[in-house]
Amino acid sequence: MSQADLVTFSDVQAARARLSGAAHVTPVVTSRTLDALAGRQVFLKCENLQRGGAFKFRGAYNTICQLPADARAHGVLAFSSGNHAQGVALAAQLLGTPAVICMPSDAPAVKVAATRGYGAEVIFYDRLRDDREAFARAIAAERGMTLVPPYDDPRIIAGAGTAALELAEQAPDLDALLVPIGGGGLIAGSAVAMHGARPATQVIGVEPAGADDTRQSLAAGERVRVPPPGTIADGLRIVMPGALTFPIVQRHVADVLVVDDDEILAAVRFALLRLKLVIEPSGAATLAALLAGRVPAGLGRVGAIISGGNIDPPVLAGLW
Amino acid sequence: MSQADLVTFSDVQAARARLSGAAHVTPVVTSRTLDALAGRQVFLKCENLQRGGAFKFRGAYNTICQLPADARAHGVLAFSSGNHAQGVALAAQLLGTPAVICMPSDAPAVKVAATRGYGAEVIFYDRLRDDREAFARAIAAERGMTLVPPYDDPRIIAGAGTAALELAEQAPDLDALLVPIGGGGLIAGSAVAMHGARPATQVIGVEPAGADDTRQSLAAGERVRVPPPGTIADGLRIVMPGALTFPIVQRHVADVLVVDDDEILAAVRFALLRLKLVIEPSGAATLAALLAGRVPAGLGRVGAIISGGNIDPPVLAGLW
Repeated sequence: MSQADLVTFSDVQAARARLSGAAHVTPVVTSRTLDALAGRQVFLKCENLQRGGAFKFRGAYNTICQLPADARAHGVLAFSSGNHAQGVALAAQLLGTPAVICMPSDAPAVKVAATRGYGAEVIFYDRLRDDREAFARAIAAERGMTLVPPYDDPRIIAGAGTAALELAEQAPDLDALLVPIGGGGLIAGSAVAMHGARPATQVIGVEPAGADDTRQSLAAGERVRVPPPGTIADGLRIVMPGALTFPIVQRHVADVLVVDDDEILAAVRFALLRLKLVIEPSGAATLAALLAGRVPAGLGRVGAIISGGNIDPPVLAGLW
Repeated sequence: MSQADLVTFSDVQAARARLSGAAHVTPVVTSRTLDALAGRQVFLKCENLQRGGAFKFRGAYNTICQLPADARAHGVLAFSSGNHAQGVALAAQLLGTPAVICMPSDAPAVKVAATRGYGAEVIFYDRLRDDREAFARAIAAERGMTLVPPYDDPRIIAGAGTAALELAEQAPDLDALLVPIGGGGLIAGSAVAMHGARPATQVIGVEPAGADDTRQSLAAGERVRVPPPGTIADGLRIVMPGALTFPIVQRHVADVLVVDDDEILAAVRFALLRLKLVIEPSGAATLAALLAGRVPAGLGRVGAIISGGNIDPPVLAGLW
């Protein structure tokens, strides 16, 4: 078995069955104005309308609900100041599992409050002093808690892929599917799901300029580390593809497109004013690629995963 | 036949068949956070995600597509600086009908541009000097165009009611349906639709403080005119119920709730940050009633029509 077989189509189908009734089947939004600007038919899979405001809930729930009873009783732990924190906190709450989220002490108050609002305990670390992963692992060991990784895990990948599996039914016969790339969990799961449901659909990644570690890694044929990216798309500021996600990406992903911050912010504005959707910068990368004319010609029906909507109010206020 | 029978359930069903493939079947959004705050299960019918950004497209299309061929060839005309303008312009464009929209000369540039973007000719009148209705009728007569009224018309009412008809299937067995009230076209159509699909559902209107002409009219037993309202909910600044909509409202509407501008703006902010939806102030009135605790106890499953999302960028920027 190749490493790329770590997550199969039936894993994604099983994840979907587990998520039934727990995750939203998110709507697919279409717009003729968008189609005219993009020069093709576009189908936006709105994971910004998912519970917790992002696709992350899918992988977190698929992981936690498979833990043995004693592990669930001891609880779960994650380190994140972003959507993964809220996804894990919400999934744990629904499953009656205690959750600890390790966040940097300078995390935005609104994210801390949202995470606590889902019933999780927040423990702060010092971003400059502490190694966040070691910090989190020490607490997990001390309390007997299970660490829920953000992307490099077969259950997380399979859970993330359920959005694309839904989309394959909601918008059949896509020529291509655009997926933003952070650590690669979403695109790996999406690619397995889409190629299981419709092998002919091209799966194309989108990365922000400066955070194109996956594009560079695919070109090099091995995982490449990039300098810490400065992009506004905070969910995509990952310096290297995941060890488990990368072989799947290598097998399934046809191409990676790059968009810059101005293009991302233009897409966020377009979504607000024309589509009436709140999309965070990371979630708008695929829309940005469509609006900026990055998507190759000849792809007439294109799906795009809008991965999240948890935009910081100051970013929202700063758009005008 | 009573005046309240002017629009029947089968009229709404026929409108739905006409709109099939032209209008979006808009999604219904749910949120446990909202349910917890509202103290009940809430189902938001997202007409902000309708084509043209508001429910108005439904009535406009249902009206224009029924015009005889010669009337369609001569074109249609509407006076509006709001969602009705865009609804008529878009419906006319799809049906290959010329459209003129009369707007005040100080209409926001973004609305003028959106209306022109749908292919309509915009003719400006002077808000202080001209009687907009007489101005529009003069142009309609001169060009042989058909006036598409904003709400007081059986085809407009039946078209507007199709959103509630969809909702009755998407969220069955509602105890109540909340609908914003401007001229009354949306609530009249919604009430006929909902009471045809599920007679036991209470239909409850929502008006902004100062624009509660329908609440006052129901109490008085006749149409009452209020002073020009100053509410931020510009789509609901109507001074008197429609002559055709009011008898329908009298028969079908159980109650009218009133919300103030602060409550409306809090609902707009909540929708942006928690629901990831852009809702204009008029469209957020029903959500405001839920969040402000105005909805009577005992109604466990409540639908709410979110009527539109065409918020002005300065209003959006001013929220923070």
